[in-house]
Amino acid sequence: MQRRATNVVWHHGLVDRPTRERLLGQQGAVLWFTGLSGSGKSTVARQVEHDLLHRGRFAAVLDGDNLRHDLNADLGFSPEDRTENIRRVGAVARILAESGALCLAAFVSPYRADRDAVRERLDEGRFIEVFVDTPLAVCESRDPKGLYEKARRGEIKDFTGISAPYEPPLSPEIHLRTDGRTVAACAEEVVGELVRRGIIG
Amino acid sequence: MQRRATNVVWHHGLVDRPTRERLLGQQGAVLWFTGLSGSGKSTVARQVEHDLLHRGRFAAVLDGDNLRHDLNADLGFSPEDRTENIRRVGAVARILAESGALCLAAFVSPYRADRDAVRERLDEGRFIEVFVDTPLAVCESRDPKGLYEKARRGEIKDFTGISAPYEPPLSPEIHLRTDGRTVAACAEEVVGELVRRGIIG
Repeated sequence: MQRRATNVVWHHGLVDRPTRERLLGQQGAVLWFTGLSGSGKSTVARQVEHDLLHRGRFAAVLDGDNLRHDLNADLGFSPEDRTENIRRVGAVARILAESGALCLAAFVSPYRADRDAVRERLDEGRFIEVFVDTPLAVCESRDPKGLYEKARRGEIKDFTGISAPYEPPLSPEIHLRTDGRTVAACAEEVVGELVRRGIIG
Repeated sequence: MQRRATNVVWHHGLVDRPTRERLLGQQGAVLWFTGLSGSGKSTVARQVEHDLLHRGRFAAVLDGDNLRHDLNADLGFSPEDRTENIRRVGAVARILAESGALCLAAFVSPYRADRDAVRERLDEGRFIEVFVDTPLAVCESRDPKGLYEKARRGEIKDFTGISAPYEPPLSPEIHLRTDGRTVAACAEEVVGELVRRGIIG
């Protein structure tokens, strides 16, 4: 078998990052939405995507919907598989950010170390952790798929927040308290922060 | 362990594809550059990316440079690993295309079945196979990293075109003969085809 390192020739892009970002009118970045199941991560991320597209920006959501069914279809929910899931998502998110996209990644991602590993692969200021902070009782009352009910009955093991740990971010760039607020208001807070940081004009 | 299928709630995007593509001013698609090592796949893809960005379009290159060092760093060059490499690249390319990006994937991808598997996951007309057809002798004379020389000496085994098969596309959307032509001319042919197909305006 050919060794890996010998076959990779680095081609530098013809368009450097400042030029790319000037042409696109935005900085590439990863917005990482983390929180319990049912906290509203994907819902808020998709509203942010909507708002950004309507401002003429390029945004793309990564979540279980487009990852677990395809790229990560070989992975389950064991601690090791969760870590590999987040590693691959992080790699895809980085490709998007380096291409100049605003990548909105929405994953429970319960382990702090996994999230920090994604952050470390990105340049300073290009990883924006969004803690979607919704009380467990609220998430459980929403329970759109009856997952919490199954977890409480012990039919689902290792369910984050019930029988598996969730490690909240210690200093997220955005601490989004969703309880009692509209999706639109939450999304507006996120977009406002992107403007404040100069990610979008 | 929680079973996979139970934990995935599909969130439909708030922006349907026609609206997204109208807002972005382009259709999402995968341009899949396949050909021998040294054929010019990445070089042409990066020129196309440059040209598209300067037309105000969103384009992103996927190649060994940004995949093999991160997402696929766990994979080598055995037939099985090559297949898994292309499977993952295809999944990422699809995410980009569904987000409305023009994804320029440049991989030797020697097996027809692997390329066709990527094609089948995309909607009709959204997979554009670009056969970068450069004679082996020309690729070998370029040999920027001395890989062909090593392969001829038997120091690299399973090297595509020398000691491992390359299965050329049977009916690629673009058959790009690069020998004796400039990179700019090759890129222009590709961009022209995107216009002809209505992928970009």
